[in-house]
Amino acid sequence: MLTLYDLAGAEPDRRFSPFCWRVRMALAHKGLEVKTVPWRFTEKDRLAPTGQGRVPALVDGERWVWDSWTIANDIEDRYPDHPSLFGGAAGRALSRFHAHWTDTVLHGGLVRLVVLDILRHCHEKDRDYFRKSREERFGATLEAVVADREARLPAFRDSLAPLRLTLRTQNFLGGESPLFADYIVFGAFQWARAISDFKLLAEDDPINEWRGRMLALFDGLAGKAKGYPV
Amino acid sequence: MLTLYDLAGAEPDRRFSPFCWRVRMALAHKGLEVKTVPWRFTEKDRLAPTGQGRVPALVDGERWVWDSWTIANDIEDRYPDHPSLFGGAAGRALSRFHAHWTDTVLHGGLVRLVVLDILRHCHEKDRDYFRKSREERFGATLEAVVADREARLPAFRDSLAPLRLTLRTQNFLGGESPLFADYIVFGAFQWARAISDFKLLAEDDPINEWRGRMLALFDGLAGKAKGYPV
Repeated sequence: MLTLYDLAGAEPDRRFSPFCWRVRMALAHKGLEVKTVPWRFTEKDRLAPTGQGRVPALVDGERWVWDSWTIANDIEDRYPDHPSLFGGAAGRALSRFHAHWTDTVLHGGLVRLVVLDILRHCHEKDRDYFRKSREERFGATLEAVVADREARLPAFRDSLAPLRLTLRTQNFLGGESPLFADYIVFGAFQWARAISDFKLLAEDDPINEWRGRMLALFDGLAGKAKGYPV
Repeated sequence: MLTLYDLAGAEPDRRFSPFCWRVRMALAHKGLEVKTVPWRFTEKDRLAPTGQGRVPALVDGERWVWDSWTIANDIEDRYPDHPSLFGGAAGRALSRFHAHWTDTVLHGGLVRLVVLDILRHCHEKDRDYFRKSREERFGATLEAVVADREARLPAFRDSLAPLRLTLRTQNFLGGESPLFADYIVFGAFQWARAISDFKLLAEDDPINEWRGRMLALFDGLAGKAKGYPV
């Protein structure tokens, strides 16, 4: 049985790491069972075998693997007869672009909308750490970062154009069925849903339909997880 | 022998359509010979068999195919034993995201930097058409569109982050060798090079190395084409 260290909020079943969600969806795609363990930002010591302080970290017996991209590649290679996360070498290489777009454009825009909502859901012991580290990153209080979020929402929605246009002609980024690229992008939306009721997408945005399909996958793995209605 | 209607400037060998460059690179990738025919914006009648007025349009005997994505898919399917443009069904679906990112983010940013340079290289008979149609699109004179281009350059460069980060870990978007996704993105840079000496990238930008590799492909197909040094 695999074990995944998974970022949790004050409630242990509120899981809000976009990178952990990538891995949870990827493990389900591969048909691999996993036990998730709630982990908080300040529990760096529990990840000591990885030599770094962030989740996701996946443990298989004595073997630790960390970083969502590395984990996806590791399980793809170790379980080649299970459904593929990339659809071949080309798909694997091409998916890196989706990952970097998500890390920069999507996460960069999203965090400035919901970072205060994250703080509100953090475990008490994580709050000082979270506020301090994020305020240093932004050079502003979290309250100031989100103060004009309504005004920034149109630009955020505009920045999703490549995703929106792609999903107008196919059900998933991977085509007729989802691939790891879908889980990469979806992790961001699942992160937001876990901690915020802020309405990210317009009602008629075609991204909503894809989001619904993603929430329904694997018997509602993501849809049944604790979070706000979308 | 295939024939490609290819957007040309005042000089017939100055080819500056990003979409035509996608096709020229794709044809070379497939090892297909093509005769390119210079075409100008206002020669809509020459494309009458397509029922629309834009290039690329590829002719194979009596058969016309148009739109760069459609052409790439058409030659991929008709020549399945030639080197693949997508690396399989997953790669084909995933490449749509690169296409939409290029069409919106990359082209959208780029045209606002070089649109006046395009006008300067248009054939005389195209100039009124080009100015009028683009000024309607922008709601401003072309001179006004590019007036603050130096100030907008940093934001344009920032918008290339997903491309830059991807190319830090692999030689091509397609991995160790180029795929159609590379030609999609490269078409934009080749468009710019054909008509503008405006310096798009910083000297130390890792995108430059990829651009150089793309210019060198197929015995320098793109690098030997008329344009400005990069």
